[in-house]
Amino acid sequence: MDNAPFAVGIGIGTRNERGQWLEVLYPGPLLRPKGNFADFYKLLGYARSGAGGNRAIEVQPEAVLPLCDALQKTGKDGARAARAAVPLTVLAVKEIDAQPLVVTVLDRDAAPASVPEAYLKLHLLSHRLAKPHELCLDGLFAALPTVAWTSEGAVDLDELPLRQVSARLGGRVLTVNSVDKFPPMTDYVVPPGVRIADTARVRLGAYLGKGTTVMHEGFVNFNAGTEGPGMIEGRISAGVMVGANSDVGGGASIMGTLSGGGDMVISIGKNCLLGANSGVGIPLGDRCAVEAGLYVTAGTRVAVLNGKGAATGTVKARELAGRSNLLFRRHSESGRVECLPNKTKAALNKTLHAHN
Amino acid sequence: MDNAPFAVGIGIGTRNERGQWLEVLYPGPLLRPKGNFADFYKLLGYARSGAGGNRAIEVQPEAVLPLCDALQKTGKDGARAARAAVPLTVLAVKEIDAQPLVVTVLDRDAAPASVPEAYLKLHLLSHRLAKPHELCLDGLFAALPTVAWTSEGAVDLDELPLRQVSARLGGRVLTVNSVDKFPPMTDYVVPPGVRIADTARVRLGAYLGKGTTVMHEGFVNFNAGTEGPGMIEGRISAGVMVGANSDVGGGASIMGTLSGGGDMVISIGKNCLLGANSGVGIPLGDRCAVEAGLYVTAGTRVAVLNGKGAATGTVKARELAGRSNLLFRRHSESGRVECLPNKTKAALNKTLHAHN
Amino acid sequence: MDNAPFAVGIGIGTRNERGQWLEVLYPGPLLRPKGNFADFYKLLGYARSGAGGNRAIEVQPEAVLPLCDALQKTGKDGARAARAAVPLTVLAVKEIDAQPLVVTVLDRDAAPASVPEAYLKLHLLSHRLAKPHELCLDGLFAALPTVAWTSEGAVDLDELPLRQVSARLGGRVLTVNSVDKFPPMTDYVVPPGVRIADTARVRLGAYLGKGTTVMHEGFVNFNAGTEGPGMIEGRISAGVMVGANSDVGGGASIMGTLSGGGDMVISIGKNCLLGANSGVGIPLGDRCAVEAGLYVTAGTRVAVLNGKGAATGTVKARELAGRSNLLFRRHSESGRVECLPNKTKAALNKTLHAHN
Repeated sequence: MDNAPFAVGIGIGTRNERGQWLEVLYPGPLLRPKGNFADFYKLLGYARSGAGGNRAIEVQPEAVLPLCDALQKTGKDGARAARAAVPLTVLAVKEIDAQPLVVTVLDRDAAPASVPEAYLKLHLLSHRLAKPHELCLDGLFAALPTVAWTSEGAVDLDELPLRQVSARLGGRVLTVNSVDKFPPMTDYVVPPGVRIADTARVRLGAYLGKGTTVMHEGFVNFNAGTEGPGMIEGRISAGVMVGANSDVGGGASIMGTLSGGGDMVISIGKNCLLGANSGVGIPLGDRCAVEAGLYVTAGTRVAVLNGKGAATGTVKARELAGRSNLLFRRHSESGRVECLPNKTKAALNKTLHAHN
Repeated sequence: MDNAPFAVGIGIGTRNERGQWLEVLYPGPLLRPKGNFADFYKLLGYARSGAGGNRAIEVQPEAVLPLCDALQKTGKDGARAARAAVPLTVLAVKEIDAQPLVVTVLDRDAAPASVPEAYLKLHLLSHRLAKPHELCLDGLFAALPTVAWTSEGAVDLDELPLRQVSARLGGRVLTVNSVDKFPPMTDYVVPPGVRIADTARVRLGAYLGKGTTVMHEGFVNFNAGTEGPGMIEGRISAGVMVGANSDVGGGASIMGTLSGGGDMVISIGKNCLLGANSGVGIPLGDRCAVEAGLYVTAGTRVAVLNGKGAATGTVKARELAGRSNLLFRRHSESGRVECLPNKTKAALNKTLHAHN
Repeated sequence: MDNAPFAVGIGIGTRNERGQWLEVLYPGPLLRPKGNFADFYKLLGYARSGAGGNRAIEVQPEAVLPLCDALQKTGKDGARAARAAVPLTVLAVKEIDAQPLVVTVLDRDAAPASVPEAYLKLHLLSHRLAKPHELCLDGLFAALPTVAWTSEGAVDLDELPLRQVSARLGGRVLTVNSVDKFPPMTDYVVPPGVRIADTARVRLGAYLGKGTTVMHEGFVNFNAGTEGPGMIEGRISAGVMVGANSDVGGGASIMGTLSGGGDMVISIGKNCLLGANSGVGIPLGDRCAVEAGLYVTAGTRVAVLNGKGAATGTVKARELAGRSNLLFRRHSESGRVECLPNKTKAALNKTLHAHN
């Protein structure tokens, strides 16, 4: 019986005083699971047709254990997700004022219509279940509230001033780490085999392939990321994907499409090297390099050199978009931006990456 | 009766073991309020003449409620400030070892002479009650102690090592987030309508206009800021103000006057675009753009082009300071820095900014 | 009797559920102490020969006070270290589930073979007892586990997901600040006379000389640092040392040897100025300056000008490595990278640095 949803997650989250969701943590999200979900749906009170579709259903603590049981019986995928959610079943036997629980079922890949739906999709990306551009994120900014991410969890901005003073009256401080629509990824999931020196700089919804190291100056936006392995010391804008064994140097900039960039979706191929403080506004193929300090925008006029160093013409950089084996540099005597065959393949430092 | 002070704040703060102030939070600071403050002054034991002037007066918890009452009766401004301070009155009925309370009255805009005075001025800026350069901040660095900003609040640096070990003995960790004279703004106030992805990068004393988004790579120093709306992914140095609807690209640098820059006060006009990894050492007028990766210092010799692209002369960039409608670029074939009429007005991404 | 070790530290640390060390804090590490350590060794059960050498020995809380007594009697160095460790003796009278204690003795400067050994060496650097390159750090990456640095201390990555959900069930949040082999220095030691605006950007093992200010955009890796005083707003890569009274501008990049750079060990001399968004791939002597926005790599062809501005030849930048009194710029009209005698000595802002 083919009734499995597009995606499903059992989550625990935070609501503000008006009862609105601020965020949800899904320990074991599922994308395109296989199996018979009839019992799970029934327990949940979810109907695919009629009231069904994409829904976030709040559940009571005592409902989680039966739901986990039913999820486990749907098959291999469900069993894995159920295992991840098991700690949540503890709530049923505790009498604490814990965070509310929610089960989110996505029948199809539509624009996220609620906070639990949006967070489920961001989880799918960061859990490496979907790659950037594979999920519909239309209207994401409108679906996500701006939240104060504090030392005491997610706090509604209207409620923040009182919470800050109250914390001091209680002998504590309330530290606000971020005021943003996206929380740091690592407060929700740390995918295996990565290092992230400053977690404030990787948003939930980033996709970090195994063997990725994000150094202190690195940054990865949502719906963007790395195939891994890779060394990321520069900024990967929303929508940008970086191929395996590439090195994005310190302070290097990769233009996105949200702000400042154009309409071209930018990606960086395999074995590329973006030098420190360099930048690109065009997609690069494999084995490309951009010299430290050079910014190549789509409109940069580039002299194309052949293997012997002779100029064969001048083109706008956008005409070189996506090509492989290119080295971009600004000639230090003439000041001319040039593109020539790249003879050096970027190689990651094995010592640094052998121990992720 | 015109006896209102220049500024006033009821605050709660931290002192070190020697009794010296480390920091003060003012929930509802007031600048140039109107009204009769006679009763308020009397309750506080404050005299404008004689022992008066600019003073920070420590008060007991039970004094706060009467002071709030008196403040409220001074008029509309006072009523608003009193409302913000009301949670502090709770202390009178609690028997806890809470932080000390202080009322700071500034009779005139003099150089800050104490920690409570300095913090009140920084609050006035971040609460948008005063703009950068509007308050006297002479001697600010000397007035502010360097503090360890930790997960347990402000800690004196001499007391830190013992606190760190003690925390571990108690099964906790004491995380030090910053060692600085200025705390992050958001631990004191989050002005409405802003997003700040990494709050460690906006100091108390920054002025962020409504609709400002500071991304992870953005930075705003004290006595600096944005009119808003705006997208800030670069660094706004102390003293710099950025106009409405401007976009400071990722890693872009705006020289300040404290370190590295010259004496010229730098500002960026409206509808400007600083490209990623660019930089400016001169003030820009409205609708200016600096190409990604180009750094224009005051001494940069710039070829000025007319609307047809013909060079009409060469000037040092400082001669172009403050002019509008300029586009700065480095010609990618000749390596020459050029300035030409800017035909593209920077436009913020509406989706990003509609939901602050 | 000359039996003092190469280094010694009494520490408190964290182990994972399998009993493996994740990190160790040494409040008072010692390098090359003088004195007779016979009694200390005996109490500790440490023998220099046979089972001796470099060892990390776990000790019980009640053993710390006698060990501190013995350490104090070894001489002046030992007395200082014992004082710093005294708070640890409190554990003997507390019945809490505190962190485990370890005494690490390094007989000689060998490659770190365990977590306690590696952490002791990182402490020696950050306590300013050894300068970068003075200690053997071979195999450091293999010796250090990747750890989740959280609001509840160091957490094993395998144990993290359950800890995160459990925290929420307990009404808390577990914030992950970093996923890295190196913790932030300031959670272990804040050397006197420094300011570090964003502590996430200075790794344990950094050496910060007195009078160093690391601004929000600054970064200092392990085994790297500053002689001090200095203003650091750019990135000091592993292995790089910056001389006194130098200013590393905002976003400036100094290539290291671990990733991206070559084999040349890079250092910056005294009274140097790296402009904002500039970069260097060669060592600089004293009183050198690199113009804002210019990246000089070892392979950059540089026109050398004499004091009158006349070109005397063109060399690759690596030939200028380590020379003093040089100014590097890209001529803004010709686009040519030039090197000329530097006439302006970098001067730090005294107001900023007088109050560290």
